[in-house]
Amino acid sequence: MDESLSGMKSLTPWRSPLADALHRNRSQPYSRYFQLATVQPDGRPANRTVVFRGFLGDTNQIKIITDTRSQKCDQILHQPWGEACWYFTQTREQFRLAGVLTLIDANYPDPQLQKARQSTWQELSDNARLQFAWPHPGDTRANSDSFSPPKSDPTSSPPSFCLLLLDPVKVDHLELRGDPQNRWIHLRSESQVWSTMAVNP
Amino acid sequence: MDESLSGMKSLTPWRSPLADALHRNRSQPYSRYFQLATVQPDGRPANRTVVFRGFLGDTNQIKIITDTRSQKCDQILHQPWGEACWYFTQTREQFRLAGVLTLIDANYPDPQLQKARQSTWQELSDNARLQFAWPHPGDTRANSDSFSPPKSDPTSSPPSFCLLLLDPVKVDHLELRGDPQNRWIHLRSESQVWSTMAVNP
Repeated sequence: MDESLSGMKSLTPWRSPLADALHRNRSQPYSRYFQLATVQPDGRPANRTVVFRGFLGDTNQIKIITDTRSQKCDQILHQPWGEACWYFTQTREQFRLAGVLTLIDANYPDPQLQKARQSTWQELSDNARLQFAWPHPGDTRANSDSFSPPKSDPTSSPPSFCLLLLDPVKVDHLELRGDPQNRWIHLRSESQVWSTMAVNP
Repeated sequence: MDESLSGMKSLTPWRSPLADALHRNRSQPYSRYFQLATVQPDGRPANRTVVFRGFLGDTNQIKIITDTRSQKCDQILHQPWGEACWYFTQTREQFRLAGVLTLIDANYPDPQLQKARQSTWQELSDNARLQFAWPHPGDTRANSDSFSPPKSDPTSSPPSFCLLLLDPVKVDHLELRGDPQNRWIHLRSESQVWSTMAVNP
């Protein structure tokens, strides 16, 4: 990464409040869960809970994992914009992160991102890996045997395993505990520079 | 309500599991919060935390409140479909409720729904009512005096107060604690009859 970009990254104004929230809510495992909204091909919204898997290297892209057979993959291919809503219950604050979603599946050409996909697979628990060998999500319930596949190979991800990246361009941070409440909107310009504005809650 | 409709209502298959979840997670006030996804006029999704305000009378419509000045109102006028994602942290289960959203503002013609809007206003806390007299949400932060308006009249709602109803036609219920996991999809047919299918998680 060249110095100018790296310098800008260090100025990303929402990373420090988000890191604080993750730290201050760390006693609850579900503080790493957030809700990801996408749009279906018919124009209606979809919304589900996903798990925060950290950031991609030294970028601001949020890592999520998904099954290529899940409906969100089709939705993202059709409309790559998503919005994450992340509510922290202990500190009573919300981050809304809007940006473009990128699906890194087994056929994604970029070798660096393919490497990130593999390392994300390796970092999963055995139980999390198992789910990618389960029967097709959303189909009529299969018999229980099919949910006990042989243990997955941690060194080699299956084709159903997909790394999903959210690259925020707008982050709306609301603190309910403020008096009255505090709210900031962080926006990334086309030249990749972030600006912050205090707004009414 | 005529008997046939009332009979169907008693068969709504997701009401009992949702009532159980609300009961079993009642020690956390945030178990009444969920994330509501809508679609912006530009086709991108939006997502924010809202508060469950109960059901409208003996219907399956979920009550939410909103400020007519918030962006979600414009979004809903443009695309009335929404999806709520409701994750219960204690019992580790998720409900995704998809359906049509209806905005009941001060000008909504139906007298029954106008009455529901007024009673919802009366049931709010003083603090919750105060927010509808705050400066325009999302605008550049106003000075602190403007966040201390005189106490709102509990008997008369301001024009900014809007009752928002979500009428689910599809409810996707996931229990992470199952072994492996349990998931059901409840669907409402055009003749208003609900059916339930056990599906793969």
